[in-house]
Amino acid sequence: MTLESENISADNDTHLDGVLPVSPELVAEIETALANGDKDQIDFLLEPLHSADVADIFEQLGDNDRRLLTSFIGSDMEPEVLSELDDSTLEDVISEMDNLDVARAITQMESDDAVHVLGYMDEDEQREIIAALPIEDRLAVEEGLSYPEDSAGRLLQRNLVSVPGRWTVGKVIEYFRTEENLPTEFYEVFIVDPSHHPIGIVALNKIIRTNREIKIRDIMEEAPTVVPVHMDQEEVAYLFSQYDLTTIGVVDDSGRLIGMITVDDVVDVIEEEAEEDLMRMAGVQETDISESVFEASKNRVIWLVVNLATAILASMVIALFDATIQQMVALAILMPIVASMGGNAGTQTMTVTVRAIATRDLTSSNVKRIIIRETTIALVNGVVIALLIGGLSWLWFQDALLGGVMGVAMVINMIMAGLAGILIPVALDKMDIDPALASSIFVTTVTDVIGFFAFLGLAAVVLL
Amino acid sequence: MTLESENISADNDTHLDGVLPVSPELVAEIETALANGDKDQIDFLLEPLHSADVADIFEQLGDNDRRLLTSFIGSDMEPEVLSELDDSTLEDVISEMDNLDVARAITQMESDDAVHVLGYMDEDEQREIIAALPIEDRLAVEEGLSYPEDSAGRLLQRNLVSVPGRWTVGKVIEYFRTEENLPTEFYEVFIVDPSHHPIGIVALNKIIRTNREIKIRDIMEEAPTVVPVHMDQEEVAYLFSQYDLTTIGVVDDSGRLIGMITVDDVVDVIEEEAEEDLMRMAGVQETDISESVFEASKNRVIWLVVNLATAILASMVIALFDATIQQMVALAILMPIVASMGGNAGTQTMTVTVRAIATRDLTSSNVKRIIIRETTIALVNGVVIALLIGGLSWLWFQDALLGGVMGVAMVINMIMAGLAGILIPVALDKMDIDPALASSIFVTTVTDVIGFFAFLGLAAVVLL
Repeated sequence: MTLESENISADNDTHLDGVLPVSPELVAEIETALANGDKDQIDFLLEPLHSADVADIFEQLGDNDRRLLTSFIGSDMEPEVLSELDDSTLEDVISEMDNLDVARAITQMESDDAVHVLGYMDEDEQREIIAALPIEDRLAVEEGLSYPEDSAGRLLQRNLVSVPGRWTVGKVIEYFRTEENLPTEFYEVFIVDPSHHPIGIVALNKIIRTNREIKIRDIMEEAPTVVPVHMDQEEVAYLFSQYDLTTIGVVDDSGRLIGMITVDDVVDVIEEEAEEDLMRMAGVQETDISESVFEASKNRVIWLVVNLATAILASMVIALFDATIQQMVALAILMPIVASMGGNAGTQTMTVTVRAIATRDLTSSNVKRIIIRETTIALVNGVVIALLIGGLSWLWFQDALLGGVMGVAMVINMIMAGLAGILIPVALDKMDIDPALASSIFVTTVTDVIGFFAFLGLAAVVLL
Repeated sequence: MTLESENISADNDTHLDGVLPVSPELVAEIETALANGDKDQIDFLLEPLHSADVADIFEQLGDNDRRLLTSFIGSDMEPEVLSELDDSTLEDVISEMDNLDVARAITQMESDDAVHVLGYMDEDEQREIIAALPIEDRLAVEEGLSYPEDSAGRLLQRNLVSVPGRWTVGKVIEYFRTEENLPTEFYEVFIVDPSHHPIGIVALNKIIRTNREIKIRDIMEEAPTVVPVHMDQEEVAYLFSQYDLTTIGVVDDSGRLIGMITVDDVVDVIEEEAEEDLMRMAGVQETDISESVFEASKNRVIWLVVNLATAILASMVIALFDATIQQMVALAILMPIVASMGGNAGTQTMTVTVRAIATRDLTSSNVKRIIIRETTIALVNGVVIALLIGGLSWLWFQDALLGGVMGVAMVINMIMAGLAGILIPVALDKMDIDPALASSIFVTTVTDVIGFFAFLGLAAVVLL
């Protein structure tokens, strides 16, 4: 670790900017060294850094500099730097590296990291690199890749510590001291039966604190948390966070222990999953920031085109009332307010609903109550906003009836927004469609269409 | 743990619904038992559950049932259930419990949990409960509460394991076996100098694997990661995730080690922080789902009123062109499309920017490059959408010039949306305002105002 305790306590700085090693100045120095082709200077600058910080530098450099840096240090790239890179930077860096260098880095990784890195290559590259691996690594990696993306199988580390329950604590400690193939870090030991089914788990601190003669099965926690190898990583992450776990065992279809997942691997998954919802609701990819301009444009424009269709639909509703608008231009001036407020209120309800579904706070036990709750909130806030904008419209256009129409249309649209905001994500979830991905399109369509229709329709009936 | 490995491997179910103990059926059974006042049945149903699952049940029950359940089990409430509750349910449950019962639960908690629970009481309640605590707990809790909310001081666990560097591994193990006041769980041991400044850290598995005669300082990792007690929890979480840590030491202003934070406590913070951005961007509180209808309405309506003001601003722009619209109603039909597409494109850029700022992927090193990138994407997508909608408008209204105006206005608005989407959050961040909280208001104001102005203004000049 490069974080110096003296620095922090000395200036009592509680902001990370002065503390983290990757400063804008450092990045600028590296850019200069790259421009000068000064490899020694680059080595000098990167040498003291943690691999996660080196990865950050790769992510912050422009495309050209990134390629230059890769070609400079490619042949002695730390394996940890590769496994810390974000997805699209990883693709970029790997495609620039020599296959043999990638293979060398991969053999030095834990199996989960190796599978993660290989997962971002196209099949041809994968095959070439796997062929360059030693046989035992090759089998482990091929099996890892056979599991679906985002499953427990992709996260698992094959190298775990498991012992039979009849061993004494002393024998277990002896085993730790003599066995060379243990993981570099582990916090817990699995107890397995003769057919390698997990029957318990013991934390290291408990082993150290226990008398050497005692049998390990007498101090184990029974029924360890294990998950099937195909479980989605989001659900694995949920178990860690729900039960404050540090280690989960992974079992194959016959219930045999084939690996473990530790909490540090899951921290990234948890961040990813919450971020995914945010990004999907706005119609962007999670990796957008490090994608090429072409990729990002392409991914975003799809969403924009879908939204364009819904905007056109709303315009067709307006077109139904063109004669009404011609008679009273005030309607054209006020109508976007109804649609926009409905959209905002709908987005509030929808965001709460999407997160509540993701965090399992919204279940079939309480969905009815939450629907009533959201409708009540929509009604209350609809009335508040309706009184405000109804009054303002009256004053603006000196027309009490117009103010009334505005207010009533607003209440109608806000209630519809609330209903759409909860019912649409719940329905999508029931249909196994990710509510974060599709809800906002449907919700804004509802609020636009209903908003324009309620306001212009009421106006046509009441005012003309 | 109540998760049975046999169940999982037997039916090979990779979905959690059948696996997690809190099912809608269980909640319904508890509701029935509450209605019948059947305390035995409630005890029978809750007894096999993990405290995190009992907390979930509290969160899923309606207000009345929650109060009933609290009064039923209040006097033997597990301390862990309280510390697992979400914020507003916790407030609810505590206010229903007897102060003495709360005090009893708090004395059984680790110091970080105790401070967390007390943090959600009003000052009078806090004082009463602190007065009921034994003296040593009282001092620890009072000190914890003296640190700002969301700081490292609120997360830290005072009880940690620290030993002097001159001790041998054998002596350290002996200390573990005989010392009674150790934390129930720990993964690492701090090495401290005589004035209790942290000088190193050793993982337990390294201690077990090392010969007993070796001095502990010879196997320690030097410069352990430590943070000052006032550091914001978001930055603490960032360090855990950036450096894959399991334990961070917390030091006071003079650099003395006063506690530790472990990764399982930080998992919740990481979830919270990513969720906070999502919720704030939509104008809702993070705790919305478990707030009362009144609280939630109040918190949401503030956002709606601010949005109403920006919508009125946009309407005032339309009002400038009322004569133009009266001459050509097609403008009223098409104008919401320009504003809406600008809003969507602006939200895409803004979401990417807000997250990149939060995850430190956007820094002053790369901000210029990202601005150019976003403007390019906006231009490319603006042209694509402009061609589409320009052509459609031409066909719809049989007016090539109208199509042209639509297209040009769209390109202008999409570029402004891209610029607003990046410049506004960056500027807010520079001013130390949370970009997630305020960006979307400003971005949609820009896209509405520019959208209407560009389209109607061009139309007035070109078409009439």
